[in-house]
Amino acid sequence: MAAAGGSRGARKSMQLSPRGGGDRTVFLFDRRREQADPDEKVLSYGKNSYRGFRSAVCQAFGISPDENFVITTTNRKEITEDNFKELVQDGVTLYLLQSVDQTLLSATKERIDFLPHYDTLVKSGMYEYYASEGQNPLPFALAELIDNSLSATARNTSIRSIQIKLLFDDSNGKPAVAVIDNGRGMTSKQLNNWAVYRLSKFTRQGDFESDHSGYVRPLPVPRSLNSDISYFGVGGKQAVFFVGQSARMISKPADSQDVHELVLSKEDFEKKEKNKEAIYCGFIRNRKPSDSTHITNDDERFLHNLILEERDKESFTAVIITGVQPEHIQYLKNYFHLWTRQLAHIYHYYIHGPKGNEANAVTKSVSPFNNIDIEISMFEKGKVPKIVNLREIKDDMQTLYINTAADSFEFKALVDGDGIVEGIIRYHPFLYDKETFPDDPSFPSRLNDDDDDDDCLMIEKGARGKRPIFECFWNGRLIPYTSVEDFDWCAPPKKRGLAPVECYNRISGTLFTNDKFQVSTNKLTFMDLELKLKDKNTLFTRIFNGQEQRMKIDREFALWLKDCHEKYDKQIKFTVFKGITTRTDL
Amino acid sequence: MAAAGGSRGARKSMQLSPRGGGDRTVFLFDRRREQADPDEKVLSYGKNSYRGFRSAVCQAFGISPDENFVITTTNRKEITEDNFKELVQDGVTLYLLQSVDQTLLSATKERIDFLPHYDTLVKSGMYEYYASEGQNPLPFALAELIDNSLSATARNTSIRSIQIKLLFDDSNGKPAVAVIDNGRGMTSKQLNNWAVYRLSKFTRQGDFESDHSGYVRPLPVPRSLNSDISYFGVGGKQAVFFVGQSARMISKPADSQDVHELVLSKEDFEKKEKNKEAIYCGFIRNRKPSDSTHITNDDERFLHNLILEERDKESFTAVIITGVQPEHIQYLKNYFHLWTRQLAHIYHYYIHGPKGNEANAVTKSVSPFNNIDIEISMFEKGKVPKIVNLREIKDDMQTLYINTAADSFEFKALVDGDGIVEGIIRYHPFLYDKETFPDDPSFPSRLNDDDDDDDCLMIEKGARGKRPIFECFWNGRLIPYTSVEDFDWCAPPKKRGLAPVECYNRISGTLFTNDKFQVSTNKLTFMDLELKLKDKNTLFTRIFNGQEQRMKIDREFALWLKDCHEKYDKQIKFTVFKGITTRTDL
Ligand SMILES: Nc1ncnc2c1ncn2[C@@H]1O[C@H](COP(=O)(O)OP(=O)(O)OP(=O)(O)O)[C@@H](O)[C@H]1O
Ligand SMILES: Nc1ncnc2c1ncn2[C@@H]1O[C@H](COP(=O)(O)OP(=O)(O)OP(=O)(O)O)[C@@H](O)[C@H]1O
Ligand SMILES: [Mg+2]
Ligand SMILES: [Mg+2]
Repeated sequence: MAAAGGSRGARKSMQLSPRGGGDRTVFLFDRRREQADPDEKVLSYGKNSYRGFRSAVCQAFGISPDENFVITTTNRKEITEDNFKELVQDGVTLYLLQSVDQTLLSATKERIDFLPHYDTLVKSGMYEYYASEGQNPLPFALAELIDNSLSATARNTSIRSIQIKLLFDDSNGKPAVAVIDNGRGMTSKQLNNWAVYRLSKFTRQGDFESDHSGYVRPLPVPRSLNSDISYFGVGGKQAVFFVGQSARMISKPADSQDVHELVLSKEDFEKKEKNKEAIYCGFIRNRKPSDSTHITNDDERFLHNLILEERDKESFTAVIITGVQPEHIQYLKNYFHLWTRQLAHIYHYYIHGPKGNEANAVTKSVSPFNNIDIEISMFEKGKVPKIVNLREIKDDMQTLYINTAADSFEFKALVDGDGIVEGIIRYHPFLYDKETFPDDPSFPSRLNDDDDDDDCLMIEKGARGKRPIFECFWNGRLIPYTSVEDFDWCAPPKKRGLAPVECYNRISGTLFTNDKFQVSTNKLTFMDLELKLKDKNTLFTRIFNGQEQRMKIDREFALWLKDCHEKYDKQIKFTVFKGITTRTDL
Repeated sequence: MAAAGGSRGARKSMQLSPRGGGDRTVFLFDRRREQADPDEKVLSYGKNSYRGFRSAVCQAFGISPDENFVITTTNRKEITEDNFKELVQDGVTLYLLQSVDQTLLSATKERIDFLPHYDTLVKSGMYEYYASEGQNPLPFALAELIDNSLSATARNTSIRSIQIKLLFDDSNGKPAVAVIDNGRGMTSKQLNNWAVYRLSKFTRQGDFESDHSGYVRPLPVPRSLNSDISYFGVGGKQAVFFVGQSARMISKPADSQDVHELVLSKEDFEKKEKNKEAIYCGFIRNRKPSDSTHITNDDERFLHNLILEERDKESFTAVIITGVQPEHIQYLKNYFHLWTRQLAHIYHYYIHGPKGNEANAVTKSVSPFNNIDIEISMFEKGKVPKIVNLREIKDDMQTLYINTAADSFEFKALVDGDGIVEGIIRYHPFLYDKETFPDDPSFPSRLNDDDDDDDCLMIEKGARGKRPIFECFWNGRLIPYTSVEDFDWCAPPKKRGLAPVECYNRISGTLFTNDKFQVSTNKLTFMDLELKLKDKNTLFTRIFNGQEQRMKIDREFALWLKDCHEKYDKQIKFTVFKGITTRTDL
């Protein structure tokens, strides 16, 4: 590429100019004498030898051949015959000095570029999704892709279909994970934007040819189930590169003839770096639906079938991850039940609606929340595929909480002026010979299976154990690593309360916020939910039958808890004499 | 800039080409007929009108004037007189079609670029440092800068000086936070590399003119105090943009004449975006030491003094953050004692050495660990500056743990073959009328000041309360949000053990790992320390007087705990009758 004469042009081209071939441009500061020109001279030259270069310099600065001077790098390394090729690269800044260690008589401005390393994409997820409380973080990476699909299908009029396919049948190619939705799809420009790290719906506003212009905050809906779960412009990239080494995005927007396809891969980035090519350049393939003629790599032959299915789709997006880390494959295979249950937990209120999975609900009403199908299927060689719709899962924690609850206490917190948090506390009574507070099936607590019958120990290891009361949902989906221990008004009181102290261990709770409360980039934690909720100005109000209650919430809660205890607990265990209870089924 | 004829060159230049001015290059696919050329034609044209452009296209493809065809974007928008300027930008891919909605007869390859958005830098820290357990995360951002200074001063032969200066005296300019060390400094190339997001010591290997070539893992040292705390190539950037909106890096390597200076600022990025300039290009200023003639902005007049101090320094690095968020200023001012204590906790073993801050140590031996001075100073108008050396702080948690401990139990965990974790458990006895287990002064627990004397409650709310036993250090510095609850062998046993159950609540612990164990990018959490430690193959061994003990660790621990109880606990509270203890000071 021809280096432009003006420094502005050269500067612009520098970032991408191939180091090595073609013409080069260097910037030279004459600092031999104080009076010299403060600005640099721009020198373009061909594949010159050191001698040619030096005499070009002499000519440019009007230096006579017998004058003594050195040309150095900004690191004060003298340019010589030997190091010329290595040191005098395109775009470099050099000094003319009287000697190598002379003081810089006046300052120089050295052009630099600092393009983010491609690990920005490739390693974006690697140190982001971490284990906490013994949980493998893989489900949380998959959740980012489900988030994107929920956003994309938000305006679907009929069923919203999200499929996670684990293609582990090696007779069809190497292992792959595919997430496919029937959402609005992406234009090629939007697909291009997908690949731009940190470009979010907020920064995308008014972008050229973008359909996202003018992001509109969604209207308030119960439990903040607004499907608006895209935020930072990083989730999809972090997720695919956490799971594997390559992502193929295939997408078709409605009323488009064309399917758009983009591959980002670690291998490709490495190749571009090696060949000194522009790192953040690539190609989108535009093609007609169901055309898989470009898939020639045998490792990906499963793609032919996936692509064939495009035929029937008005609009869709498919994310296909290959180069899946072997340990992820093992985990996905061996703990299928565990991680699907975890996903059912994360999206509980999306798949079951604002009331959650009530087994006892008289009839499942047709609501906008019965139409989100999140289906997981796993294909292994010689095995019957495992297929589960998250809605069918009956042992995710939220389902367990809801179905062991004898009663519930709803409230609202008004935070910081305009932040609203919806909350619900559920009572899990003691029945006959045991607590009904559900154990977390993935983490059977040492605490609850303890058969030590020392009373004091039993209380320490109350029904909930050491678990905090509240799980927290943001825009309707679980933020898995943030929990809120309790609030003043629902914590065991210092003085004896209306209900016995163990009742305080029989409650679980759920909090729902919208994006007025911020979450960290990996969506694993809230930024400051607990801080804000515990602010002294936060106002809690009980909601009963949809009405805000006037009484102070601590009193409301204490009465409710006492009520729960008296109505639902059927205790054998001696705590405090409370009168005679008839225990019919003993 | 002249667009090159070949597609390769054009592609390379596209990313940075100014949208708008100068010559443009477009890529045209003829898809009017199936037999057409599968490849694109590259068209360069000046600031043409639509008509001129269209006739250039006709000429290039040999289309006669009366033929019917449309030129469209890849989004199938027809190019017309009206939208020509807006849609036909430099580097764009276009189609020749018979009609707008015609099927794509064969696939096309559309050039795209996907340079990370500058929020990659500017917002890198915003959603990374989050509050947990009521802690403001600001100290953890500052810690990233201390980490860098610890790395940079690792090879200092005399004192290692790290100064955090809070310049809040507005008679000297707008508020600023400066972190200054006397470490090895950076060459201009290294300073350039500092700004490259995700460029780490690992990826930097063998880089041109880099001094980092061939990263060498540090030798094992006690408590992994290896000062090698740089890892991801993001910490410094995340930290400065969490704290403020602009960072000025000033650095001078040893045996260099020149000082190098680089400014990254949010404002600057926004300006470049607006002017359609290359985002990741900038300038390093190279100048002689103590030359502040370029500081002309009155808001930054405090810089003149800082720069003047360069005179006496062989090598140094100064990070100066401006545009500091007002809420951070408030916090730094109002909670000076709290956050300095937190920093003293994070770097406890760096500032006090492997044994920590032992008040009772006979004499402070001169060790390589007495030479790290981390000094915090805060300057406010009309006030005496607050200055504290972290080593002087006596109420950080580690100091409290160490100085209330009556005895300690050291051990080693061998994980996964080659991961080694050093551990120490400390016993905080019950003395006369109270537990000596230290309360966390920043979070006075509701649990410990509880004066309810119900025995059962007392046990639930044991000395440690609900806190996990272990704090965890990585390469010698605290990873603040990861804690390990306990291990099987130090958890209260199911059956009655050798020591009463409350003794298990009188222990605190510390774990030390090197970077064989991974931490998340924000250094707030370990990735999977607990998972690995709790693996059934993990081998725990007690270390006593530097020797590995042969006996099983659970037995060693139980005996040690019993011993501690008998030797150190001086109880009034009745637990189990153990004989008569003479309580002299009652
Ligand atoms: N399944 C999909 N269907 C349609 N568009 C999608 C889909 N997945 C991603 N996108 C588009 O790509 C963009 C980038 O996705 P990505 O998950 O990387 O970031 P984000 O969702 O914007 O923010 P976050 O970091 O919160 O996930 C999205 O904003 C959306 O416009
Ligand atoms: N105070 C300093 N003195 C000398 N060099 C420094 C200093 N601070 C940063 N650097 C250099 O800049 C690089 C980038 O720093 P940055 O903190 O952004 O990332 P990192 O330390 O490499 O990795 P991490 O993400 O773990 O912090 C460092 O690796 C180091 O080479
Ligand atoms: Mg997303
Ligand atoms: Mg760092």
